[in-house]
Amino acid sequence: MELLIPLDPQEKKPLYEQIYAHIRGEIRSGGLKAGDRLPSTRILAEHMKISRSTAQMAYDQLLAEGYIEARPYRGYFVNPVEELMETGPAGGEEMETALPEPSPWSVDFSPRGIDLESFPYGVWRKLSRNTLVDDNKEMFHSGSHQGEPGLREAIRSYLHSARGVLCSAEQIIVGAGSEYLLMLLAQILGGGRTIAMENPTYRQAYLVFRSLGYQVCPVEMDENGMDPDQLKASGADVAYVMPSHQFPTGIVMPVGRRQELLKWAADGRYLIEDDYDSEFRYRGKPIPALQGMDRSGRVIYLGTFSKCIAPAIRVSYLVLPPKLLKRYREQAGFYASTVSRIDQNILYQFLAQGYFERHLNRMRAIYKAKHDLFLEAIQPLQPLFEIRGEYAGIHILLTSRTGIPEETLIARAEAAGVKVYGLSGYFIHPEHNRRPGTIVLGYACLSEEEILRGAGLLKECFLGKPVGGDADLVR
Amino acid sequence: MELLIPLDPQEKKPLYEQIYAHIRGEIRSGGLKAGDRLPSTRILAEHMKISRSTAQMAYDQLLAEGYIEARPYRGYFVNPVEELMETGPAGGEEMETALPEPSPWSVDFSPRGIDLESFPYGVWRKLSRNTLVDDNKEMFHSGSHQGEPGLREAIRSYLHSARGVLCSAEQIIVGAGSEYLLMLLAQILGGGRTIAMENPTYRQAYLVFRSLGYQVCPVEMDENGMDPDQLKASGADVAYVMPSHQFPTGIVMPVGRRQELLKWAADGRYLIEDDYDSEFRYRGKPIPALQGMDRSGRVIYLGTFSKCIAPAIRVSYLVLPPKLLKRYREQAGFYASTVSRIDQNILYQFLAQGYFERHLNRMRAIYKAKHDLFLEAIQPLQPLFEIRGEYAGIHILLTSRTGIPEETLIARAEAAGVKVYGLSGYFIHPEHNRRPGTIVLGYACLSEEEILRGAGLLKECFLGKPVGGDADLVR
Repeated sequence: MELLIPLDPQEKKPLYEQIYAHIRGEIRSGGLKAGDRLPSTRILAEHMKISRSTAQMAYDQLLAEGYIEARPYRGYFVNPVEELMETGPAGGEEMETALPEPSPWSVDFSPRGIDLESFPYGVWRKLSRNTLVDDNKEMFHSGSHQGEPGLREAIRSYLHSARGVLCSAEQIIVGAGSEYLLMLLAQILGGGRTIAMENPTYRQAYLVFRSLGYQVCPVEMDENGMDPDQLKASGADVAYVMPSHQFPTGIVMPVGRRQELLKWAADGRYLIEDDYDSEFRYRGKPIPALQGMDRSGRVIYLGTFSKCIAPAIRVSYLVLPPKLLKRYREQAGFYASTVSRIDQNILYQFLAQGYFERHLNRMRAIYKAKHDLFLEAIQPLQPLFEIRGEYAGIHILLTSRTGIPEETLIARAEAAGVKVYGLSGYFIHPEHNRRPGTIVLGYACLSEEEILRGAGLLKECFLGKPVGGDADLVR
Repeated sequence: MELLIPLDPQEKKPLYEQIYAHIRGEIRSGGLKAGDRLPSTRILAEHMKISRSTAQMAYDQLLAEGYIEARPYRGYFVNPVEELMETGPAGGEEMETALPEPSPWSVDFSPRGIDLESFPYGVWRKLSRNTLVDDNKEMFHSGSHQGEPGLREAIRSYLHSARGVLCSAEQIIVGAGSEYLLMLLAQILGGGRTIAMENPTYRQAYLVFRSLGYQVCPVEMDENGMDPDQLKASGADVAYVMPSHQFPTGIVMPVGRRQELLKWAADGRYLIEDDYDSEFRYRGKPIPALQGMDRSGRVIYLGTFSKCIAPAIRVSYLVLPPKLLKRYREQAGFYASTVSRIDQNILYQFLAQGYFERHLNRMRAIYKAKHDLFLEAIQPLQPLFEIRGEYAGIHILLTSRTGIPEETLIARAEAAGVKVYGLSGYFIHPEHNRRPGTIVLGYACLSEEEILRGAGLLKECFLGKPVGGDADLVR
């Protein structure tokens, strides 16, 4: 049987995903029927002038999701679609992240993406070659539970110089992503904790704490961040904060407020400082970490390489105050590291040989350029919208001065083919949103052209049309 | 200052660890005093004819542990030793695994090690190069939460053919090690569970469950494994078992007993089947997994690549029954995968291109040869010792027929420079040990020469001396 699969080399999605998506579409639409035989990977590869492993990867995904089956000595056959529904594709999130559908949007201002165009792939390849040279067999033996000493020292020295974090490498625990480290932290802190979170906040962290059985108290923020009186009233014994650049509001917590929080924590409580994107600041001095001000050992510092290197490398780190370090070793020291020694060594070289710093500087310049371009392009919105969270991070906030509700803004943008994100989505209880007409716009993974096109479309749909006349757009 | 560091190229420990260990020794012994300046990495490297990065790694570890400090523009200086004691090396396990001290033993029969001499490093290098080729940028974007579909399909197909596991790739969750997957499982099953464990068992799993707040009931075993009556009486709603090759007893659970356990689980309970080393069986057919017999969706299958590939790659997998898969997606589906996409792709190629199967066959032959050699060498112990757990796995058990207590056996062996492990160490409550005179002997990472030497020494100290006359040795 012949397959005619249109491939778009410009398309960001890799070839095997395009092939996968096409065949899956054919099966869903009935173009391919149960029992139909697919061409062998060899035929498909020759026929489409692609590598055989690309064809194999596409088939593997169809197999994985149950769309086709492999019969020994016979080939690949389409499964009946009814059966699929039970063991069908995973619910929501999971498969979406695995296989992004072709975006229906002309421009998607997702706050989640990061720019990987300028990642030093060549360097990473070189470092991984260096790590796997013959005399490095010990890389395959299990290593330090906390993380390789060399990597922890490199992280310590970076945190000290760039973030003003005061710690020894002994206090650092390297782990496979911030979510895992929060799981580990929960076992160190002990169950049944009540945790205060900024509202709005980083929802993923909220989901983790909830799933770990923590009682979560959302605490309102003023222009300086988490409200200390509400915090005291909350009865929480742990607070999760992002003082250097709160997500999503972009609020920077001033020294006074930081001291109030440290005072709150001083008697037996803890502050978790999530410093997720502090590397990116485009104006003024970088803001040192809260951890550096802590004299009573109450701050737990959480950092990640997901934003500043790449999400897929899965390396984050905790800096524990001495008291919790002791408890970690007594209660959770038996857990082996979740990051492979090979990856730790690649990252170690990336940091120790200065590549990380160069990469950060390059990305800071790239993001600043995108940020400046975007801000300038949306200036015409100033009269009708407050523009906030600028000069740092990789997203901004637009708040309607004329009280246009969030849903209307989103609907107008969508009608223009632009995906924007309502602030309510970041509230633990959306009804707590006291900034009705606010949308969040991320620009990290957009090209200059996309940024300008997106800004143009936003101007059209936010300025071009009368506030009243959008009933037809809301649909 | 000149450093004379004796390096042993034969020594398994990498050069940088030898340098690290020597300097640390000098500092501890006072040979190097607080404030002493160490040579620069460049000088040290030239002086010792080693690469500069090797020297740097050694210094980084000394820095990480606080033995030395780096002063900008001046160099590396020895720290006062008093201060070290506070932020000194980590307690127990952690640093041990990081930096194994030179073993004091002539032969160490550790059951934990695996043989990495025959690992196909070249293949692994090649596959990681293939993964990092330019057109694979998507490897750096975050991927499927459950694990890459291609890898899951490769695992499914391996489990189906090699272990008789019946599942779709959709039921598989890939994670950074079994301990992490048990943490995740605990969130899927929900807290406050009571879990039954074989006694003796894999203590690491016991520590995880305890640390997760599970109530653990140790359940005695007869020659067929976990006692079903005690299990029923325990009131547990989950049981953790190793039916194919129980650790450490080596017991293989027969079909009848498996059915009893499945019957127990059938109404609302769960069995966690840890199939940690079933790949290694040297006689008879491989024993299919319990999961394959499960008709009511009550078995959670746990597998790992730590034993059959390498501990440091940190990849394990869970196979969830449909009901728990649904709950996973509802309650824990938001957790991103803890294994980097790059590593998943390397492993995917290793499996899909047949390297894994070849590697398993090679290792099976290597371990069988070591096993046969060891068994033959200790045959003379037969009259005085029962030898159990053979024909599978990578360790055996010796039980004294004359009632010599465990401690005495260990003491005698130690006096002869041989490290052996008492069975009591694997009991949740050592006092439950009903096989007093039993020791566990692992041979995976020993060379033929070490195995023969170790067997010889054991014969000497177990046969050579009269049972009574060992008071002096027990000290």
